Amino acid sequence: MRIIDIREKTVSLSDPMSNAVISFLEMTASAVAIDIDAGEKGTVTGYGFSSVGRYGQSGLINERFAPRLKAVGDMTGADGGLDPVHGWAAMMANEKPGGDGDRAGAVGVLDMALWDAASKIEGIPLWQLLSERYNGDNAHERVPVYASGGHYYPDRDLTALVEEIRGILDQGFETVKIKCGQYGLEDDCARIEAILPLLGNDGSRLAVDVNCMCSTSGETQAMADAYAPYDLAWIEEPGHPHDFELLTALTGYYDGAIATGENLFSMSETYNLMRYGGLRADRDLIQIDPALSYGVVEYANIVRLAEAGDWPRSQMVPHAGHLLAFHTVAGLQLGAHEMAARPDFILSGLQGGVEISGGKATLPDVPGIGFETHGPLWAVLADL
Amino acid sequence: MRIIDIREKTVSLSDPMSNAVISFLEMTASAVAIDIDAGEKGTVTGYGFSSVGRYGQSGLINERFAPRLKAVGDMTGADGGLDPVHGWAAMMANEKPGGDGDRAGAVGVLDMALWDAASKIEGIPLWQLLSERYNGDNAHERVPVYASGGHYYPDRDLTALVEEIRGILDQGFETVKIKCGQYGLEDDCARIEAILPLLGNDGSRLAVDVNCMCSTSGETQAMADAYAPYDLAWIEEPGHPHDFELLTALTGYYDGAIATGENLFSMSETYNLMRYGGLRADRDLIQIDPALSYGVVEYANIVRLAEAGDWPRSQMVPHAGHLLAFHTVAGLQLGAHEMAARPDFILSGLQGGVEISGGKATLPDVPGIGFETHGPLWAVLADL
Repeated sequence: MRIIDIREKTVSLSDPMSNAVISFLEMTASAVAIDIDAGEKGTVTGYGFSSVGRYGQSGLINERFAPRLKAVGDMTGADGGLDPVHGWAAMMANEKPGGDGDRAGAVGVLDMALWDAASKIEGIPLWQLLSERYNGDNAHERVPVYASGGHYYPDRDLTALVEEIRGILDQGFETVKIKCGQYGLEDDCARIEAILPLLGNDGSRLAVDVNCMCSTSGETQAMADAYAPYDLAWIEEPGHPHDFELLTALTGYYDGAIATGENLFSMSETYNLMRYGGLRADRDLIQIDPALSYGVVEYANIVRLAEAGDWPRSQMVPHAGHLLAFHTVAGLQLGAHEMAARPDFILSGLQGGVEISGGKATLPDVPGIGFETHGPLWAVLADL
Repeated sequence: MRIIDIREKTVSLSDPMSNAVISFLEMTASAVAIDIDAGEKGTVTGYGFSSVGRYGQSGLINERFAPRLKAVGDMTGADGGLDPVHGWAAMMANEKPGGDGDRAGAVGVLDMALWDAASKIEGIPLWQLLSERYNGDNAHERVPVYASGGHYYPDRDLTALVEEIRGILDQGFETVKIKCGQYGLEDDCARIEAILPLLGNDGSRLAVDVNCMCSTSGETQAMADAYAPYDLAWIEEPGHPHDFELLTALTGYYDGAIATGENLFSMSETYNLMRYGGLRADRDLIQIDPALSYGVVEYANIVRLAEAGDWPRSQMVPHAGHLLAFHTVAGLQLGAHEMAARPDFILSGLQGGVEISGGKATLPDVPGIGFETHGPLWAVLADL
């Protein structure tokens, strides 16, 4: 098993959407393809595509990580298949510890392509390879999913918001997440109250993502006071990702669940979140995004780390709804998969053939990650 | 004041040196030049050059940060001069919080060029501009410096090590730092004992950099036991930069000073180091490298943050000996400047005309950072 070629290109994710922190008009992603000489099985191509929010990584891929990967000789693992760990170790050679930012996304998208190829070579979907390798052959029979949507419409149009959520529920979801935090707590509550009736007035079916809106513990308390009556499923990303004191103040004040971790990118950062963040393993959710965090090799270690710290896998809920994340949720039996529900966004949706009902998704059976079955993603990956 | 043009190139820092973590054979840096239309003062060019250890950032500079910087209109500050803060804010727009890694170096090298230009436009050295802006016009009269050298020679030749340190002391330094940690504690002690006689057997004139060699608190204790008899100036970078528990265990066990922070890259990371790392503000040293940590704008905030946490400026000692760091130490009255002493390394030495005696350096008087006065750096920057 050897790498023959690595190709990449930058894809625009330009989008009029914004959250409480950044605009997405200039957002980009990297699309990569890695050709593997798989011996008797011929040439197999694995694909990767960045998760959203941290830009494409063309520079880092071409300057550091693809050359190191190309220099790896034999990629064969102990079981005779392609072993992405060989590639991961080569990419991380001569990288100093700490500084887990852009490079974590560059390594992540290349690692993704290796896992896509490895599972294609085995002729199985990635969730199954992950299940075999990291989860004693166990996997979800059906994958818990929730839909994220509810971005801000022009003029903060609540009717459009309600229609969007109604459409999501019609697709078979039970739980939805919406954006809050951009126009003050009164506006947030209006958004929540507009949607709750669609959910049988059951707040445990609604999560809100406030995208780091709180800077002080006073602000977290005001937020908690405003949201507490709704008994929400969770409040997501309350403050700066490194502000463990803020998080500890919030979890000491608010009994409901908090979700965070999408802006942390390594095992050591996750460890410190769990060690210093005041989070509660019986309810709070850890949202490290495997695609942005050095890929599956690191993420599997993060899951093991969490378990060693008595965090059940049910509390691991990857950020952003990437096809890769769906396989990790399925194969490692994590808490839930986030699916981006907006029809006009390239990273929305799931693999072709996956069916959703009662808040759960069926398992895909196509070998690999299944980019080939996802129309918008395959449209940009096919010509690599 | 407007930006006219930004140019950059990648420079090899390939070097047979290695430390306990990485090889430097493939190491690179970014060299940048920014032309400023300074009105009546004509066109002024500011230069930047990466600090060592985190690679050049050509990709990130060209993909994200230079375009944002070029799009800034008026760069004039309240005092009528060039204000780098305008550029910094533009570069960080649409960057999500957290993930302080490669981008911190990309922003840092561009921010550096803006400060070089800003002080050239004022006709003063950068330390003076920093002194005016951030330190009530105070500055070091002479700048405390120490020399770092003592890398590993082939066959671990102690005679060559001793000769190198003797040469450093002949240049006017009082304190030196050497590498340890690569071949076990017995070898470390042999290195230390070979050098101490040159320092009057005064351990407070010798620091050792162990480049993250400890993974467990047991290892930190064994290290502390081995080094304690020497009463060293400090032990540098004992473990993984995020391992605050390891650091806390070490500082609870060892009375001597610990230095760390070179692998952290932002104000929020520094805050957590000070909050959770078990460090002692009366002796331990914080080594954030301004060139790798979003530049002077962020670093000035880090110094203020440290002071707000009762960390005196004497405990701030930037990593790696960059010409930029020399100005921050001088103008902000920090603890000491590290000077890389190896004659064959591009980032070694200080600005032209600076004289060292008794462990202190004179202040440079050339406007800007003074790249033009540093032979090896100017040789690669001049053609930008």
